[in-house]
Amino acid sequence: MPEQQETQWMTEEHKQVLRYGFKIKEKLYSERSVFQQIDVVDTDFYGRMLFLDGAVMTTEQDEFIYHEMITHIPLLGHPNPESVLIIGGGDGGAVREVLKHPSIQEVVLCEIDGMVIEACKRYLPSISGGLNDPRVDIHIRDGIEFIAEHKNRFDVILVDSTDPIGPGEGLFTESFYKNVRDALTPGGIMVNQSESPIAHVREVALVYQLLRKVFPQVTPYIATVPTYPGAYWSWAYCMKERYQGPFSQINDLLAVDIEQSTRYYNRQIHRAAFALPNFVRERTRTDFETPASC
Amino acid sequence: MPEQQETQWMTEEHKQVLRYGFKIKEKLYSERSVFQQIDVVDTDFYGRMLFLDGAVMTTEQDEFIYHEMITHIPLLGHPNPESVLIIGGGDGGAVREVLKHPSIQEVVLCEIDGMVIEACKRYLPSISGGLNDPRVDIHIRDGIEFIAEHKNRFDVILVDSTDPIGPGEGLFTESFYKNVRDALTPGGIMVNQSESPIAHVREVALVYQLLRKVFPQVTPYIATVPTYPGAYWSWAYCMKERYQGPFSQINDLLAVDIEQSTRYYNRQIHRAAFALPNFVRERTRTDFETPASC
Repeated sequence: MPEQQETQWMTEEHKQVLRYGFKIKEKLYSERSVFQQIDVVDTDFYGRMLFLDGAVMTTEQDEFIYHEMITHIPLLGHPNPESVLIIGGGDGGAVREVLKHPSIQEVVLCEIDGMVIEACKRYLPSISGGLNDPRVDIHIRDGIEFIAEHKNRFDVILVDSTDPIGPGEGLFTESFYKNVRDALTPGGIMVNQSESPIAHVREVALVYQLLRKVFPQVTPYIATVPTYPGAYWSWAYCMKERYQGPFSQINDLLAVDIEQSTRYYNRQIHRAAFALPNFVRERTRTDFETPASC
Repeated sequence: MPEQQETQWMTEEHKQVLRYGFKIKEKLYSERSVFQQIDVVDTDFYGRMLFLDGAVMTTEQDEFIYHEMITHIPLLGHPNPESVLIIGGGDGGAVREVLKHPSIQEVVLCEIDGMVIEACKRYLPSISGGLNDPRVDIHIRDGIEFIAEHKNRFDVILVDSTDPIGPGEGLFTESFYKNVRDALTPGGIMVNQSESPIAHVREVALVYQLLRKVFPQVTPYIATVPTYPGAYWSWAYCMKERYQGPFSQINDLLAVDIEQSTRYYNRQIHRAAFALPNFVRERTRTDFETPASC
């Protein structure tokens, strides 16, 4: 009975040419919010998984990679991060990692879709646990509006968005990036997820071209997220002012502490993440022209 | 008509819990050899792809990652590699990269399945082109027998095998590794593909436990191969004698030349590949116990 068999798999289809299928143990949650379709399923291989509009957002088994890499790289690069804003990130994974840093006074989370937060609180407690911490201030709002209201306010801003289609689209624009830059304190750092140099060649090129119009220093770094299309993933490390020293100047003493609780991040990984393969250097250059076939 | 639609996709199923689907433009070759099922298909995203027994072996679009990383890391770590043996690797991708090194006098390729070589010569010319080079000596034989006949013979040995099921199984044993060690010249280096720390937790643990019984120095290194299960891939860098210096002592002058023609490899990547995430350090340790759930 092929129909019955198909209900046991959750499949993400990427640009109608790639499919990623995950065998399901149990469907836990499936609702449509104002913004998107939200699904949480329990799978054999990756544990519980969150899908938004059919795309994998996070999984219990590999979420540590994405969440450690979007947080500890900028937080250990900043000399004293006290105030952090996360735009998107309703699953709470980035919040959990930010809270490991002793200098943190407040984490502001601005997530457009309250139903994502509720679903993650209920079904993904190992990821969302930090959302209940008293240092966390949650705003259920559009990040585009929220960021425009704040100037010189946050030491580090993390843009933990979906892909540049659907509700995440406005987070990949020049005007949004300008508002992010202006919301940073002097010496501030913004990191945004900047898609896959394998699976999103056109999107990566666009993001880096836009970012370099706004930030004086934009540096890609990379890690592997096995459940995302292309698996090879990038983030953009953007500084409000031009950087004078080497990137390897991180808070080493704190990093020693942090890496006791991480599963991906460590000091060697911190430096290695900025080593880019030739094809990633090329695809993140401002003058890169996307081939017509991509 | 769902049946017709399914013929447009080629799908690898991993351990009955993950599926990787690739939309097909054209089926080019499909034959069963004495050893395995061989398929070559042309896909929308990764170009032409080689499957053995339904598992992705290589693709035109991402093959450069695997082939550059299995070759240039050991060849640039060795002071003067003249003689190289490749076991497996019938697609010719590793041969092509080895031939870029000016010190090379001969490349011996020992592939068990002549039909793989013929299929790749015909349908994957951008990968297999080097197989016609006069410095290449091809043996259609079982690598297990071949390696037992050679002592102190090769400066670098690359074990470019399939997974440890089917024809590749005997290439993941202590007796095979001993014969590889003995076939190396003094100062020799063996690199074997050592599976995915994400998708092959049990296999990775076994490989590193076996290798460390045989080689005095075994060091994992990593890269991302988007079309392999788990995407996060490892190789074991094994030295015949215990190593005295830092791994960063590579032939830098030659590396500058090599990285002109590579798409993944460069000197920064060479060093970064040895930076292991915490979970990979753990899963490649000799005392790692595989969880029952893996």
